[in-house]
Amino acid sequence: MDAKEYLMKASKELDGPIRQYIGDEEPSDLIAASRQYPYAGGKRMRPAMALAAAGAVGGDRMKAMPLAVAIEYIHNFTLVHDDFMDGDEQRRGMTTIHIAYNVPTAILAGDALFAKAFQIISGMDVPDSSMRNILKYVSQAVWDLARGQQMDINNERKIVSEEVYIETIRLKTSVLFAAAAAGGALAGGADERTVQAVHEYAMALGLGFQIFDDYLGIAGDPAKTGKSVGNDIRKGKCTVMVTHAIRNIKDPKVLEEFKSILGNADATDDQTARARSIMEDAGSIAYGRRLAKEKVDEAISKLSILPHSEEKDFMIALAKYAIDREV
Amino acid sequence: MDAKEYLMKASKELDGPIRQYIGDEEPSDLIAASRQYPYAGGKRMRPAMALAAAGAVGGDRMKAMPLAVAIEYIHNFTLVHDDFMDGDEQRRGMTTIHIAYNVPTAILAGDALFAKAFQIISGMDVPDSSMRNILKYVSQAVWDLARGQQMDINNERKIVSEEVYIETIRLKTSVLFAAAAAGGALAGGADERTVQAVHEYAMALGLGFQIFDDYLGIAGDPAKTGKSVGNDIRKGKCTVMVTHAIRNIKDPKVLEEFKSILGNADATDDQTARARSIMEDAGSIAYGRRLAKEKVDEAISKLSILPHSEEKDFMIALAKYAIDREV
Repeated sequence: MDAKEYLMKASKELDGPIRQYIGDEEPSDLIAASRQYPYAGGKRMRPAMALAAAGAVGGDRMKAMPLAVAIEYIHNFTLVHDDFMDGDEQRRGMTTIHIAYNVPTAILAGDALFAKAFQIISGMDVPDSSMRNILKYVSQAVWDLARGQQMDINNERKIVSEEVYIETIRLKTSVLFAAAAAGGALAGGADERTVQAVHEYAMALGLGFQIFDDYLGIAGDPAKTGKSVGNDIRKGKCTVMVTHAIRNIKDPKVLEEFKSILGNADATDDQTARARSIMEDAGSIAYGRRLAKEKVDEAISKLSILPHSEEKDFMIALAKYAIDREV
Repeated sequence: MDAKEYLMKASKELDGPIRQYIGDEEPSDLIAASRQYPYAGGKRMRPAMALAAAGAVGGDRMKAMPLAVAIEYIHNFTLVHDDFMDGDEQRRGMTTIHIAYNVPTAILAGDALFAKAFQIISGMDVPDSSMRNILKYVSQAVWDLARGQQMDINNERKIVSEEVYIETIRLKTSVLFAAAAAGGALAGGADERTVQAVHEYAMALGLGFQIFDDYLGIAGDPAKTGKSVGNDIRKGKCTVMVTHAIRNIKDPKVLEEFKSILGNADATDDQTARARSIMEDAGSIAYGRRLAKEKVDEAISKLSILPHSEEKDFMIALAKYAIDREV
């Protein structure tokens, strides 16, 4: 089974449980708003990782199902809040909550999903000590997510170091992946060393995934990614490719030209194409791809502690897929 | 020691611990925004109740200190989000977060406080099984808080039944009081029956507290409460006194007059005074006070299960204070 097939299987398995925890309570508008994103699907990579980790450590995948739902609720809670902050109008083919309902309901729907996630964790059928450790990973992840989103906002249209950028995506993307994986391993009954290895796997994978996402944003086929190649350049997103370019462009005039296009919301397609070609000449796009691959290789190496299993195969395949996709 | 003295003592005890859990991390703006409300003080009734409950069941009050901080963080998280939703500009003598910083930072500061609360609970020095039960109470409370706030918004300028109003204040006020008390009792090592009794005490007390708050809003001295007597009438707040009046005004013309003033944002002081006098004639203001007292008596009766202690005395005194205050 390749990564996509496993993801689809896990997503299907999740369809029932994800509808199980939010009952028909009052007020109905808040309940409906809370359900919209999680019920609508999405890639569901994080819950798939929780289930896989439980199996890969030799445990029962289903022991991690409540955690999988909780992690997906948390991911969706951040999407609901972020969509409002970013002014996004569409998500998963539907109008975003703050527009379909209103801003207070969007904030409360996010808060409610967040609370429900911890309620679900409190009821997990695992030893109390494992539940406590799962709670530690997940609550730390949500704290970090808030920090990451604030750093992301603060970084906008600013040139930050590669170190700051990596820290931002670590907080925004990796920590929740890692909480899903470590929590799944704990639900599967893994020992501390194995939990740690799986945590490190997912942390590195999250970085590789996001760096490759940025790579696709500049080098991918817009017809497939659905993103205009110039988007990140106009937004001035300070990816590892951009910081590499700034460090490596030799000609001061070219550097000045590059910086003048970067973050210019009104840059023409010709200008963004020029910026991209400057980055290409500086080896920055290849650098981005290489760094993503390094992170993925690091992720896979952490799994050597695990015996062979279908779930381990998926975790490896998922890591490879992270840097071998067109969308 | 009377209720006020105990509250002040508990608030002082909390000053150190409340500063202990949010370290100097990045980004500094989010950290500063998260700290603003909890560091600024407030009545701190919820954490005081957590500490008192732990002592009243014969346990070590200090075992409940992390929970006390977590509950206060959760209370403050809801204040940060509510202040934005309600457009409030001042809180505890300072500019509210969404204005002092900006809206995204306010939402994230709330989310961060929320996450930190659960992180703190995960580290509590209590048996794992107690920690799990504390988590159940607290996560349920936050789910209910979101529902209560949404119901409150939905009720605005609408005439709802007393039942709906009571359910709204139960969710908005009582559940977090009750989680603080039950969680404190669990941290103090109480058995299930005692935890349940303390939970019921705080649930009833929360209702009595809020109903008396509404009573003060209409019958209190504006110079002391800081609230104009006409405020709740202009907002059309559907308190138990308002629904009582609607049920009990005999003359259809007077009822029509009352309804025309209720919820009229531009009502003159003479008009709101007239509405108040109609409520007085219908026995509605006395009814509000009576209902608050009933809830408080119910709360106190639940404590009969506890042996005598200074903490039990405080819990009784707090209940009495809830309906014997001018502000």
